[in-house]
Amino acid sequence: MPTTVRAYAATSPTDPLAPTTIDLRDVGPRDVRIDIRYVGICHSDIHTARSEWGATRYPVVLGHEIAGVVAEVGAEVSRFRVGDRVGVGCLVDSCRECRYCRRGDEQFCTEGYVETYSSTGRDGRPTQGGYAEGIVVTEDFVLRIPDGLALDVAAPLLCAGVTVYSPLRHWGAGPGTRVAVVGLGGLGHVAVQVAAALGAEVTVLSQSLRKQEDGLRLGAGHYAATSAPDTFARLAGSFDLVLNTVSASVDVDAYLSLLDVDGTLVNLGIPEHPQSLDVASLLMRRLSYAASNIGGIRETQEMLDFCAAHGIAAEVETIGVDRVDEAFDRVVASDVRYRFVIDTATLA
Amino acid sequence: MPTTVRAYAATSPTDPLAPTTIDLRDVGPRDVRIDIRYVGICHSDIHTARSEWGATRYPVVLGHEIAGVVAEVGAEVSRFRVGDRVGVGCLVDSCRECRYCRRGDEQFCTEGYVETYSSTGRDGRPTQGGYAEGIVVTEDFVLRIPDGLALDVAAPLLCAGVTVYSPLRHWGAGPGTRVAVVGLGGLGHVAVQVAAALGAEVTVLSQSLRKQEDGLRLGAGHYAATSAPDTFARLAGSFDLVLNTVSASVDVDAYLSLLDVDGTLVNLGIPEHPQSLDVASLLMRRLSYAASNIGGIRETQEMLDFCAAHGIAAEVETIGVDRVDEAFDRVVASDVRYRFVIDTATLA
Repeated sequence: MPTTVRAYAATSPTDPLAPTTIDLRDVGPRDVRIDIRYVGICHSDIHTARSEWGATRYPVVLGHEIAGVVAEVGAEVSRFRVGDRVGVGCLVDSCRECRYCRRGDEQFCTEGYVETYSSTGRDGRPTQGGYAEGIVVTEDFVLRIPDGLALDVAAPLLCAGVTVYSPLRHWGAGPGTRVAVVGLGGLGHVAVQVAAALGAEVTVLSQSLRKQEDGLRLGAGHYAATSAPDTFARLAGSFDLVLNTVSASVDVDAYLSLLDVDGTLVNLGIPEHPQSLDVASLLMRRLSYAASNIGGIRETQEMLDFCAAHGIAAEVETIGVDRVDEAFDRVVASDVRYRFVIDTATLA
Repeated sequence: MPTTVRAYAATSPTDPLAPTTIDLRDVGPRDVRIDIRYVGICHSDIHTARSEWGATRYPVVLGHEIAGVVAEVGAEVSRFRVGDRVGVGCLVDSCRECRYCRRGDEQFCTEGYVETYSSTGRDGRPTQGGYAEGIVVTEDFVLRIPDGLALDVAAPLLCAGVTVYSPLRHWGAGPGTRVAVVGLGGLGHVAVQVAAALGAEVTVLSQSLRKQEDGLRLGAGHYAATSAPDTFARLAGSFDLVLNTVSASVDVDAYLSLLDVDGTLVNLGIPEHPQSLDVASLLMRRLSYAASNIGGIRETQEMLDFCAAHGIAAEVETIGVDRVDEAFDRVVASDVRYRFVIDTATLA
C-alpha cells in the first residue's frame, strides 16, 4: 500500500508552485520512509522549477536538503529505526557497483547517480524531492543527523554543507592554509565555518562589505569587497585555495591572480556561459582551475558529524510553504541570511 | 680580464641571426666559466628572436639548453672542477632568499628569476645565452651532466627535459596512472620517455599517425590521431593526466573530456589567445586545468640523473650554426625529429 502525502510541486517554468499529493513508493525491504520536517531551498530547486537547466519534466516536487524522522523501515533495514533523526541530500541511489560507488564516491557513479528529484529512480519512476510530507529512500542513501544538530539548521547541510566540505577537504584546507571564500550566501556561510573549523585562515571576498560582521562572526579572519578598486592588487598571491560559491561568470584571471604558487581556484557552480582565461595566469605559479560537485554519502555523513562536533549549522529563515515563490525570488536576489528552510508542517 | 667568445645573435625580429662576439663577465669567486659544446634550439628562442613575446632587446644571444665542459672556476667554487661535464638551463640566478628559492623552486622566485638570455643579471648586465662558445654562471645554477649522457643529447633536457619531468612528478605519474602526451615534438618525445620510465601507461595524442612508430619506440603503449573523428569519444574518461605540449589553442573541453575523475589537463605552453572552457566540463568529475613552467635547479639535476639512469635522452639533429635560421623555420613547421642542437665548434 503506497502512502499518499501532501506536497508542493512546480508545474511549469512560470506558474507558482502548487499544492498536490504524491504517492510514495512502497517501503521495500531495505527502504526507509521518512517524515520530512524541514527542507532547505537550494538555488538548484529554482533552476529546475524554471527549466533553466534544460527542459524540466513537470510536475516536479523539488527539495534535496531534507531533514526528518524515520517513520517506517523495511524488514532488512539494519542501520535505522523508527524515530531516528535523519537526512537526505542530493543523491538517493546509484549503481553501487562501479569503482566510484564501491569507494563511496557515488557522485562520480559511472552509470549516473539518481538525483533526489527530477531524475529517474532505479524502479523507473520519476524521483520526487522534499517539498513534501514524506519520502522513501534506500537506507544506504539516508544520513544520520547527530544529536547536537537541530533538524531545521541541519537540512541545508545536506546539499550546501557537503558541497563546500568536500572541496575543502579534497584540496587540503587546514592549519597553515589560506582559504578565500567568494560569496557569503547559502554555500559561502557554511564554507567559512567549515574552513575555520578545519584550522584554515579564512577570508571572505564579497561584492560589498554589507555582510562583513556576519562573515567575521562565522569565523573569517578577513573580509574584502571585490568591488573595491585595490582588493585584487592588495591580495595578489595571498591564497592557497579560492572557493568560488558564486555561479555567475567572473573574471577568472583576476581570481587566479589571488593565488599563491600551487594554488587552486575551485568553482562550485556552473556559470551560464563558458569561462575564458589566459593560460599565462596558470603557468607562472603552477595554478589549477577546478570545479567540484556535492560529495558522496560517506563524506556527507562525515560532514554532518564534523558540523555537530564543531557547532556548525546553517543560519536559516524558516518559512511556511505558502511563501516558497517569494522565497525563490529572494534567493535569486541574494536576499536571505542565509538559507530558507520550509517547515513542512505547513503543508497540512 | 673578460673572456671574449664568438656567438650568434638575433639583431632584429626579421633579420637572419648574425655572427658576433660577446665579452663574458669576469669569473667571480663562485662563478663557473663553461666552454659550450652543444646548445639546443627551443621554440622560446624563436619567439624571442622574433619579438613574439613582447619587444626583445637586441642584440640577443639565444639558447638555454646548454651542455659543455668547465673551463675555469672561481676561488670559492666547491662543486665543480675544470673538465667537468655540465649544463645550464633556463635559469642562471634568482634572489636565493625567498621561500621558493630556499626550498629549491627557483622558478617561483618572488623577485623573478634571472633567465639565461634576454633578462637582466644581478650585476645589471643583460644576460646572453648559449649560441656562443662560452658562458659564465654562478655554480649554484650549473647542473652536472651524468657520465651516461652524451653532451649533444643531454643539451635539450636542460629545458625540454625538466619542462616535462617537473609536471609528471608533480601530478604523480607512475605505476597505475594513465598519461596522455599531446604532441610528439621536442617536449613530447621526452615526456613519453620519462612518463614510461616512471611506470605510467602512456598514450600519444598527435594530429596524425605519422610519428606513431617513433612514439611506440619511445615508450608509449598507445598512439591516437586527434584528427580521427572517433578519437575523443573512444578515449573519453581514459586518463589521469593529459600533458599538452602544444602551444597552439585547443578545444579545452574536448581535452578535459578525456580525463577520468580527479584528472588534470596541464598546459606546458601559453597559447596566444585566452582559452575558453565550460565549467561543467570540470565539475562533474572534479577535474583540474593547470599549467606548468620549467622546474627548479634541484629538480633539473634530479631529472638529468633520472634520464641517465633510465637511458633517456633527446633525439637530435645536430647542425652547424650557419643553419640556425633554416632550423628556426623547420621548428615552426614541426619538421624536426625531435630537437635541433647546434654544434658550437662551428662558431670557430
